[in-house]
Amino acid sequence: MTAFDLNSDLGESFGRWELGDDEAMLDVVTSANVACGFHAGDPATLRRTVARAAANGVVVGAQVAYNDLAGFGRRFMDLPAAELTADVLFQIGGLEAMCRVAGTTVRYVKPHGALYNATVHHREQAKAVVTAVAEYDASLPILGLPGSELLRAAEEAGLRGVPEFFVDRGYTPEGALVSRREEGAVLHDPEEVTARLLRMLEEGVVRAVDGSDVRVSAESACVHGDSPGAVGMAAAVRVGLQKAGVELKGFV
Amino acid sequence: MTAFDLNSDLGESFGRWELGDDEAMLDVVTSANVACGFHAGDPATLRRTVARAAANGVVVGAQVAYNDLAGFGRRFMDLPAAELTADVLFQIGGLEAMCRVAGTTVRYVKPHGALYNATVHHREQAKAVVTAVAEYDASLPILGLPGSELLRAAEEAGLRGVPEFFVDRGYTPEGALVSRREEGAVLHDPEEVTARLLRMLEEGVVRAVDGSDVRVSAESACVHGDSPGAVGMAAAVRVGLQKAGVELKGFV
Amino acid sequence: MTAFDLNSDLGESFGRWELGDDEAMLDVVTSANVACGFHAGDPATLRRTVARAAANGVVVGAQVAYNDLAGFGRRFMDLPAAELTADVLFQIGGLEAMCRVAGTTVRYVKPHGALYNATVHHREQAKAVVTAVAEYDASLPILGLPGSELLRAAEEAGLRGVPEFFVDRGYTPEGALVSRREEGAVLHDPEEVTARLLRMLEEGVVRAVDGSDVRVSAESACVHGDSPGAVGMAAAVRVGLQKAGVELKGFV
Amino acid sequence: MTAFDLNSDLGESFGRWELGDDEAMLDVVTSANVACGFHAGDPATLRRTVARAAANGVVVGAQVAYNDLAGFGRRFMDLPAAELTADVLFQIGGLEAMCRVAGTTVRYVKPHGALYNATVHHREQAKAVVTAVAEYDASLPILGLPGSELLRAAEEAGLRGVPEFFVDRGYTPEGALVSRREEGAVLHDPEEVTARLLRMLEEGVVRAVDGSDVRVSAESACVHGDSPGAVGMAAAVRVGLQKAGVELKGFV
Repeated sequence: MTAFDLNSDLGESFGRWELGDDEAMLDVVTSANVACGFHAGDPATLRRTVARAAANGVVVGAQVAYNDLAGFGRRFMDLPAAELTADVLFQIGGLEAMCRVAGTTVRYVKPHGALYNATVHHREQAKAVVTAVAEYDASLPILGLPGSELLRAAEEAGLRGVPEFFVDRGYTPEGALVSRREEGAVLHDPEEVTARLLRMLEEGVVRAVDGSDVRVSAESACVHGDSPGAVGMAAAVRVGLQKAGVELKGFV
Repeated sequence: MTAFDLNSDLGESFGRWELGDDEAMLDVVTSANVACGFHAGDPATLRRTVARAAANGVVVGAQVAYNDLAGFGRRFMDLPAAELTADVLFQIGGLEAMCRVAGTTVRYVKPHGALYNATVHHREQAKAVVTAVAEYDASLPILGLPGSELLRAAEEAGLRGVPEFFVDRGYTPEGALVSRREEGAVLHDPEEVTARLLRMLEEGVVRAVDGSDVRVSAESACVHGDSPGAVGMAAAVRVGLQKAGVELKGFV
Repeated sequence: MTAFDLNSDLGESFGRWELGDDEAMLDVVTSANVACGFHAGDPATLRRTVARAAANGVVVGAQVAYNDLAGFGRRFMDLPAAELTADVLFQIGGLEAMCRVAGTTVRYVKPHGALYNATVHHREQAKAVVTAVAEYDASLPILGLPGSELLRAAEEAGLRGVPEFFVDRGYTPEGALVSRREEGAVLHDPEEVTARLLRMLEEGVVRAVDGSDVRVSAESACVHGDSPGAVGMAAAVRVGLQKAGVELKGFV
Repeated sequence: MTAFDLNSDLGESFGRWELGDDEAMLDVVTSANVACGFHAGDPATLRRTVARAAANGVVVGAQVAYNDLAGFGRRFMDLPAAELTADVLFQIGGLEAMCRVAGTTVRYVKPHGALYNATVHHREQAKAVVTAVAEYDASLPILGLPGSELLRAAEEAGLRGVPEFFVDRGYTPEGALVSRREEGAVLHDPEEVTARLLRMLEEGVVRAVDGSDVRVSAESACVHGDSPGAVGMAAAVRVGLQKAGVELKGFV
């Protein structure tokens, strides 16, 4: 493994409300999951974020979500498949316009929040998202959880499904994320986090919460952008990868 | 004049709420000003409308508006230029995605409602709209009122500004539309309306409310799609043009 | 049974979009489930609807819903209980202001759409709705499906739960509504519908889709307000009740 | 002057987005202008803010605004008077529900952002706001700029208009606020700000940007809650007033 990708959720400010330090994160990550206005991200914010990503050579992906500003896309919504497909198309298109004027394009798609979680198991919604991407541009990869219905549906449709690793999340012995309601769900030590990522890259395993090793395979690592200390953690991971001789490079 | 365009506002349903008879209108018009979700038009509606427009060979334009669902984009909003430009870009992009999956593209831009009225006189907003179009695709024409700041700004930016005629609206002796608060603002007789349009096409004049003739030049005629009798009026105009030997053809 | 209530969903227009014939329905029903702005109903619509209800002596209830304009509140949303409680409170309050200026008050609460369906079985959401009502005014009854978690939670909290009958819906032998995806879900014949309602009132039973009789008990009957023929059906039911000597009277 | 009021805009978080330190501000101010969901403030935020205000004995006012989340209510909207009146009513009602469950009531109304600025000069909108308050509860005072159309309309309608002073804003020789685009618009030194407020209280004058003294009369002083250093500035003003023997007390 000589090259690897760091992705983060960006462009999630909305009007008066600022969230995260996009400028700083865009010096760290290689892929930016940019919000598309449905859970966060007003058009002016999206434009600014995409312009800076393009200037920094950061790959832009569409971070599509449920149409739920008040819930930040974190509340499951039981949409008919055709509505979800249309919603995803509209969001990709809105962001694409910002990419076009910044001289770039939407290069991948990643569901956000409750849609991300739903499409791990919810086959109909997973297929609805994949259908949107396939119809829009079947060459766009979809970023998601290893083993999810989303990545399965992507592959069935002939799209590239890209599994990701969560650098600061605990894993169960089965390779799932530890629920945020349980202990060990979130890791806070940049050194430990970096070491875990490097081990995953080298050996394809991560230490689970019960002390066992679990196989994990990923082509990108997600670093959070909106928590206190987020930039510091992400920067530490980046430096750790570079010191280990891993080139930082978008997965697309 | 052997060919002329009829345009109409379409795609203005929203979720449970239906507005206008898009199917019928798409058999009549040659250009569809399709809403883009900010004043009307949920993504599933937009997708359906664009698909049918494409199937019928009707040219699709982006009917961009203020971000005001509750007011249907009919209430002036005093936006900073950069926000308006970003809003317009996002809307064009959202609609463009629907066009792409329908095998077509956004072919022109027309502001809706209060934004249409504002950009007649409001130079900053007119320029903000034009800037969005110029940055997105400078080959896209902008449809608007003859003599408006919008068309002036379009031409200054090297874009094609397309003046339109309102078939069922009264004109002042100065060539402006009679205010809806005054008598003679709206015409209801399909025959009279058709005759006015034909005279405008042949002689370049229209009879104003005071009985005088006023010069009007246009490359497209707007027919309304959402009032009772709208389809009947539009169809009558179409038939009238055809009988007079005018080919119905998009202005793009 | 000498008096009975007819309720209907009203106030569901939104800005430019009109839905249903509220004026006509307010001459027919005795209880108006007025939307509260989250799934439908802009403030001016609510004000107008409530004013007319008050003028006609129709009791006003708050028709609370998920915060989902695009989905008309018909898409299940997995909200945390505290958020749902706060959302319900806000909606009741918004409508209460319209009642106050019309010289009346919110007299009951009824969930709308997907929230209505969810609270049949979803205990946490049922309790969240009931909590809002109990905290706001524990004397307000809650209108819902007989046997639902909603009515159970209402009674557990010491509130009055009011079961309702759906005049134009088919019933299963177990007393549930026939799914709209199956045959016999919706009845269209005003005479049959009226006869069913009268039999329910007199004998406490309704003929199920399989021909058996099922016990149904209700204190109000819901008539739909937004389908074609809605006013005619509702009026026929009203006349049928009156001819049978049943007084039309709000359940509150 | 032995008692005076400090007011601040609070409850302006929205879902995932936090704004200001409401908890800290509610230890400082005596009146809380709580957002009502149209420009900011989801229901759960409003409920939490009002509950804490009630617990601290802080008077709650309704901070009503244009229906413009994306613009935070800072963009003028040209609403028909009846729509604005209905919007204001709905907002007061929504907040009132939160007050009711917290054992308090809405005690005054203050327009926010662009509506505040518009109602300084825009007579129709000023009257529309006042009409809403007068119809809702004519005993509620309206907080606004001295000399504004808003306060004039309030008095004409028999309502109490309460003029406020901006502690950290520069004044023109005519007693208006210095535009934020000009120098001297915002003051940052807590000592200077406190001294200005005390002088205004004692002498009824404030030093204008040109060095002259201008007469200013107010019953409340507005301190900002959402800028960096806001809590420190507000606390310094509070302490300064207390040291000078001025009791902190709501104006209602």
